Amino acid sequence: MDFSNEAPKKVRELIRKGEIDYQTSGMCNGFAQGNLCILPKKYAFDFLLFCNRNPKPCPLLEVGDVGSKVIKSMADNGDICKDLPKYRIWKNGVLEKEVTDITEYWQDDFVYFLIGCSFSFEGELIESGVPVRHIEEGKNVPMFNTNIRLNPAGVFHGNMVVSMRPIPQELVVKSVNVTATMSRVHGAPIHIGSPEAIGIADVSKPDYGDAVTINDGEVPVFWACGVTPQNAVMQTKPEIAITHAPGHMFITDVKNVNLKY
Amino acid sequence: MDFSNEAPKKVRELIRKGEIDYQTSGMCNGFAQGNLCILPKKYAFDFLLFCNRNPKPCPLLEVGDVGSKVIKSMADNGDICKDLPKYRIWKNGVLEKEVTDITEYWQDDFVYFLIGCSFSFEGELIESGVPVRHIEEGKNVPMFNTNIRLNPAGVFHGNMVVSMRPIPQELVVKSVNVTATMSRVHGAPIHIGSPEAIGIADVSKPDYGDAVTINDGEVPVFWACGVTPQNAVMQTKPEIAITHAPGHMFITDVKNVNLKY
Repeated sequence: MDFSNEAPKKVRELIRKGEIDYQTSGMCNGFAQGNLCILPKKYAFDFLLFCNRNPKPCPLLEVGDVGSKVIKSMADNGDICKDLPKYRIWKNGVLEKEVTDITEYWQDDFVYFLIGCSFSFEGELIESGVPVRHIEEGKNVPMFNTNIRLNPAGVFHGNMVVSMRPIPQELVVKSVNVTATMSRVHGAPIHIGSPEAIGIADVSKPDYGDAVTINDGEVPVFWACGVTPQNAVMQTKPEIAITHAPGHMFITDVKNVNLKY
Repeated sequence: MDFSNEAPKKVRELIRKGEIDYQTSGMCNGFAQGNLCILPKKYAFDFLLFCNRNPKPCPLLEVGDVGSKVIKSMADNGDICKDLPKYRIWKNGVLEKEVTDITEYWQDDFVYFLIGCSFSFEGELIESGVPVRHIEEGKNVPMFNTNIRLNPAGVFHGNMVVSMRPIPQELVVKSVNVTATMSRVHGAPIHIGSPEAIGIADVSKPDYGDAVTINDGEVPVFWACGVTPQNAVMQTKPEIAITHAPGHMFITDVKNVNLKY
């Protein structure tokens, strides 16, 4: 089924019922999607500060009150425990299992962090005439570890993870302009053109996601990626953390155009 | 003395030596200035979340690690205890005293919050040909309580405080455009034209600061104000809190143009 023009609330209902348990890429065009990270309260100040100090990879969409499961500002009555198609439960930094509902894992001291996802701006790129290769090829976006150090905060630190899209030379400036105004879903690229300058040895071998075709006359363009905060969290090995499964995002009721400052 | 074109580091040295203990309005044109709020760690997550949920009145410039007195990203080796001309010590929400150095009051569990100040964009307004009345009249900016409810977070809640500048009708759009790009120092206005619509009964009687002349053909334009977070903090009556004294700001080494997203 094609959910590209479906309303977010309708899709969230299908997710909540368990009828959609797959990736959300391409769903509900024009609406922002979010990465999820849930941590116990004792890590919450450090992680909130970490996101504030690294707004390009960790742009906050909404942060819950301690113990709250309700998404208020980004969605009409969103349920953080049921409204994502797939979750990952991590214990001491190790993936324990994947589930489609986290109600039974919920703790009163949990704080959720909803972080902007670059899926949000891909619709805008396509509408502006900028091709998005992994969508054309039916793949996941290629993502890479880099040598770009993040600003540490408390127990959290690490390097930036980036996503890559090959852009025809004559459309590189347009790809910057289109995404620059959308800072809450990663905004403008963090690097254009030289993978090795940011510590990427081979642009055909992504660390996460799939490799995509780079044609002659195309430039690899790199955006900060929402995998970054998850990586930082896993490095600190908290007793428990819950995240979305890659590509299985929370679809908000907020249009990307309304996320602009 | 005129410090309008002095380097921030030089002015901070004079402040640190105690040679400047007065207001910083008009100093170091082009460089961002910051409001200060210091709280014990137990309030830090709630307050950081409060600022994140209310970015117009509480735009964060820098937040310290727990116990850290050093301002790193916004200044070259800034000292939060000595580099503001005047501080206020609050106990249980009551002003206890004003001092020019808070070293002896410092606690290992303190967290500082540096919040953008609209002094920062006044230089840009003037340079763009938009008059700033309180500077012309040698007064403090007029500030008002409003009926605009803030998004609560943990123990913090309250209404927005705004600053007002009378702008000639033909320059109102320009005043929006000039400030809109500077979201980390309050950004675009939150209201134009009707004080009563935001709960202000008499625009000639500010709740803080000084009244200024509004000429025929001028429109009162309202910006979110950095007094807002201080008000919210005082309403919760923490055992201890330290803020800047009104108008006695931290002058950063960062140009306003570099604060744009």
